[in-house]
Amino acid sequence: MTTTAPAEPYGADSDQTRAEVDSALGAFLADKARAAAGQRMPGEVTALLADFLAAGGKRIRPLLCLTGWHVAGGRGHPLPVVRAAAGLEMFHAFCLIHDDVMDRSDTRRGRPTLHRTLAARHAAGRTVTAAQRLGAGTAVLIGDLALTWADELLHTAGLSHKQLTDVLPLLHAMRTEVMYGQYLDVTATGTPTADVGRALAICRYKTAKYTIERPLHIGAALAGAEQTLLDSLSAFAIPLGEAFQLRDDLLGVFGDTAHTGKPALDDLREGKATVLFALALRHATRTQANRLRPLLGHRDLTHDQAATARDIITATGAVHHVETMITERYAQALHHLRTAPLEPASIRLLHDFADTAVRRTA
Amino acid sequence: MTTTAPAEPYGADSDQTRAEVDSALGAFLADKARAAAGQRMPGEVTALLADFLAAGGKRIRPLLCLTGWHVAGGRGHPLPVVRAAAGLEMFHAFCLIHDDVMDRSDTRRGRPTLHRTLAARHAAGRTVTAAQRLGAGTAVLIGDLALTWADELLHTAGLSHKQLTDVLPLLHAMRTEVMYGQYLDVTATGTPTADVGRALAICRYKTAKYTIERPLHIGAALAGAEQTLLDSLSAFAIPLGEAFQLRDDLLGVFGDTAHTGKPALDDLREGKATVLFALALRHATRTQANRLRPLLGHRDLTHDQAATARDIITATGAVHHVETMITERYAQALHHLRTAPLEPASIRLLHDFADTAVRRTA
Repeated sequence: MTTTAPAEPYGADSDQTRAEVDSALGAFLADKARAAAGQRMPGEVTALLADFLAAGGKRIRPLLCLTGWHVAGGRGHPLPVVRAAAGLEMFHAFCLIHDDVMDRSDTRRGRPTLHRTLAARHAAGRTVTAAQRLGAGTAVLIGDLALTWADELLHTAGLSHKQLTDVLPLLHAMRTEVMYGQYLDVTATGTPTADVGRALAICRYKTAKYTIERPLHIGAALAGAEQTLLDSLSAFAIPLGEAFQLRDDLLGVFGDTAHTGKPALDDLREGKATVLFALALRHATRTQANRLRPLLGHRDLTHDQAATARDIITATGAVHHVETMITERYAQALHHLRTAPLEPASIRLLHDFADTAVRRTA
Repeated sequence: MTTTAPAEPYGADSDQTRAEVDSALGAFLADKARAAAGQRMPGEVTALLADFLAAGGKRIRPLLCLTGWHVAGGRGHPLPVVRAAAGLEMFHAFCLIHDDVMDRSDTRRGRPTLHRTLAARHAAGRTVTAAQRLGAGTAVLIGDLALTWADELLHTAGLSHKQLTDVLPLLHAMRTEVMYGQYLDVTATGTPTADVGRALAICRYKTAKYTIERPLHIGAALAGAEQTLLDSLSAFAIPLGEAFQLRDDLLGVFGDTAHTGKPALDDLREGKATVLFALALRHATRTQANRLRPLLGHRDLTHDQAATARDIITATGAVHHVETMITERYAQALHHLRTAPLEPASIRLLHDFADTAVRRTA
């Protein structure tokens, strides 16, 4: 492993990387569609999955995978590494599709969620309830296929035996972590409490490790990184990822739908176990808590009630508190970055990413 | 690849193989439980998955994987092959758990299905509907973990690079086939028609390839089998697997609950797109069809109504027709077996399996 600077700052060509990743995903799904057409298999599976991937998404995980690759001394964008990065995006499609079913979300990336689309498509001859159940079932199956195909993208990427051996334990860890994180999340959702520790554990597994740390690790491992470099990346990635999720929690309640593509009602209606809600409940006066509790997890929350919930959450000081946590974690991430055994160009690269991640509005 | 006879007839020690596979599954899950305990991850995931695996199951796929290994000249039960076979059983747990959620089945292996168990466990403080939804969501997640862990069992099995390279395309094919088969199945369920071709396609993907052909292929590939042997195994496995599923369809309607562990009402209540129902609808008189249609897919079907449906199905000649199809396919499988380039001991082994598979009552 070497940690010399990338030949050119990687951040400059993220549009190109996105295009390469999307091209790898498109080619893979086109192959799958051709195979299905020859075997009496339903063509809507690959078509809907391609639509889902094309509908948007920031491609953060593939970009961070390529960033990890560069930071650990990888050069250029070799196809095997791009396909491995594309596998992370396919895995992410699996996560989002299953999460949306579990959360019963109506929209994703400004469009109906996949289970809603499928329910509408298979509505003929069925009751509304039966169509909704079928929508959920088929969405789970398309998610299962995305998970399996994420594997297949990696295994057919043309990686060396050493690359595969280095990367598989990290990939298995990533998958187990995000699934456990989701498990903690869905079992806590609907019954929000003042348990900030549990909310932070969800935040760490579902986001800090899954979205930031593991993609960096996987890219770095593909370039032959040793454990010390992986540890340095963790010291940067975990606080940054927590800051990222805390920002997401704020956007989920106070964000602008036009930017996020999601109504700022879902977290409130679901009663998600976020750090924001846990802090609000912990610091609320008795009167505030009595008014806030019935609003969190209220499935038919109106826009007026949501505005009331936002006012109470702000009045408890929770918003300010979360902003402070974001600032602290951001500073911590940058401190670890400055003291990491990395080349200046790598530090600049990760610094740019950290800025974008924490200051985003969507 | 060699096709000399196994040193000892493999069928003789299937109990030992089951014990070895179960021991590999148990050790793997015990490791996962220890890791979870150290990381604030919910311990019920591994406990429930271990319970699910311990509750029963014939271990057909691992046994056939070892059979394929022997037929292709493998000797003994080396741990890497046993762990790969255990990975097939873990994958199967994933399939059953997700299928039960999609089919909304109440029981599996004579016990409440996993999503029912989880709904009961998380009932406190939730409405019945909310608890059921949470049960379904967490069961989907435990299934996702089983799918990921099936991978991990294979990748940490200690297989050689060549073994892994030979086996992965077969494994990917198997996963895609069974998921597409399930997709065809759930979209057809509830609206049974006289489309025998569609019912047979589901039968082929969900069972013939998934339960028989691919496990044999995977075991044979682990022993270095070439394509000609895989093709011979397919010529035996596909008709046998169809016969196996046709038997399952009969048992699903006419079987004895005490033997199958499943009430003989589920297929009727769900209105599954089985060959049995398709044939019954195709050959029914107008009067029979008018009486049968509303019973297929009737969620609250009583035992008396089920008895009526059984009588009509029998009267159409569909049961006799399915028995004939089973006999024909069984004969076809045995014909291919006799003419296959296999050693006598291998032929005997597969012949024994065919007998057991088609004559079973559970």
